[in-house]
Amino acid sequence: MDKKEYILRQLARTKGKKYEAYVVYRIMTILNDLALKFVTQQYVSRPEGRALTDLFFPQLGLHIEVDEGQHFTEQNIEADKIREADIVNATGHEILRVDVTKDIELINNRIDEIVMRVTQLKASNTFVPWSIEAEFDSDTYIKKGYIDVSDNVAFKTIKDACNCFGHKYTGYQRASAPHPDFDTVIWFPKLFPNGEWENNISFDEEVITEKNVNLEKAREHVISHISNKEKHKHKRIVFAKVKGNLGDILYRFRGIYELCINESNEVTGLVWKRIGKRVETFPNL
Amino acid sequence: MDKKEYILRQLARTKGKKYEAYVVYRIMTILNDLALKFVTQQYVSRPEGRALTDLFFPQLGLHIEVDEGQHFTEQNIEADKIREADIVNATGHEILRVDVTKDIELINNRIDEIVMRVTQLKASNTFVPWSIEAEFDSDTYIKKGYIDVSDNVAFKTIKDACNCFGHKYTGYQRASAPHPDFDTVIWFPKLFPNGEWENNISFDEEVITEKNVNLEKAREHVISHISNKEKHKHKRIVFAKVKGNLGDILYRFRGIYELCINESNEVTGLVWKRIGKRVETFPNL
Repeated sequence: MDKKEYILRQLARTKGKKYEAYVVYRIMTILNDLALKFVTQQYVSRPEGRALTDLFFPQLGLHIEVDEGQHFTEQNIEADKIREADIVNATGHEILRVDVTKDIELINNRIDEIVMRVTQLKASNTFVPWSIEAEFDSDTYIKKGYIDVSDNVAFKTIKDACNCFGHKYTGYQRASAPHPDFDTVIWFPKLFPNGEWENNISFDEEVITEKNVNLEKAREHVISHISNKEKHKHKRIVFAKVKGNLGDILYRFRGIYELCINESNEVTGLVWKRIGKRVETFPNL
Repeated sequence: MDKKEYILRQLARTKGKKYEAYVVYRIMTILNDLALKFVTQQYVSRPEGRALTDLFFPQLGLHIEVDEGQHFTEQNIEADKIREADIVNATGHEILRVDVTKDIELINNRIDEIVMRVTQLKASNTFVPWSIEAEFDSDTYIKKGYIDVSDNVAFKTIKDACNCFGHKYTGYQRASAPHPDFDTVIWFPKLFPNGEWENNISFDEEVITEKNVNLEKAREHVISHISNKEKHKHKRIVFAKVKGNLGDILYRFRGIYELCINESNEVTGLVWKRIGKRVETFPNL
């Protein structure tokens, strides 16, 4: 998918919502900036819950809400509706609203204000122009030296994520991969109930639980992980498998998590707590 | 329906067509002109056939075609698909195309060219700013002194059309009304087969045929019209009943037509030929 296709498809997702379409197309037309990535109808996670924003600028940490009277905090999303969705952590992000119940001249004025704010944020940040190739390329992050949650990093394949940590895979399908640090593994979980696994991640993304639905298997799983630290590493760099809003599979970086032995048991499952939002990358030698 | 609602609904009609939506929203955003009326997905009639254009500026006689490889002349429309539709006569209109198979930068450049052409036409014409109230108001045309096909005139009710010709109706439901000229009547037909009437209008709108499906009734109808000129006037000012593209009923001015006695018969029905595209209006005294 090239930039043209991405832009047209993201914009077209507003179909059937006349206010949202008007605001989103208008903002993007006036911005007229192919260096600015945007996502329409982005699911976001914040400590207080999950929600949907109408327009998201990942490079700026900025969201636009088309306000038809229903408010952001009211439209919390049920977890099961978006279990597979690509959810972005919006903690600390800025949210601007457009009240579309007003006259069209006032809506247009508000859109102009938003465009000014976008331009301002773009100028004041250490802004990196959007490249649809570079953002999914391991080399981008190897050169950068790290992967950080605040950079909204996701890969299209498991191998691309692995190759940020010294690997030179041309293909890789397993749900975990070795890491240069002996006590760490790279993990590619589905963070929602799937098959025999009842996985979950908290709204603030600080806690992941991993549990087998079978009580006997759950017990074994917990015991073997706690007792055999050599085999089952206690630190995991997590790339959650999600479905992007254009239907594409993505592996979304969530941070580095450590097993919490005290809270893990056969009822709760393994409890992983985030110990870092940034991890070092390694060149493939 | 106010201007805001009209604009939002016209734009939203592009839904599901990502190229069309991109081009139409972008043109309208850059124009940023609430004095400029526009119609999306406008059916047009030209001597060579009927077609659909993606964006129409009635005040300018200008159409925009989003070209995905299929060409204007190729996409002729089957009559029965749009029998009730509001069809605009596009004879002499200008058509500009956007080739959306090109790169997005080139599409954007082409849109800028189109916006320049719109601005040019708006400046050079005797441009009348769009008023959503005035365009459907009898008084507008009484003050102007005439109604002309090239002005794309349509009314929301039969009474509004009648009141352009000396009437002071507050309500009127019949399919014809008297006219100040003794030999003329104001007619509000469905110009497509409906019930017992097999009406039609030619692509160039110069000829209307009116025929009863029952041969006996058709014969009587033709004979009584030809023989009784006092009762059945031989000139008709025609406002065709159509369905606007937002689902609203409109009575679209088509011109003044005269009965062609030579060509009328029980097989063809009555044949009406256009004798003028402009008619005088009359104040209601």
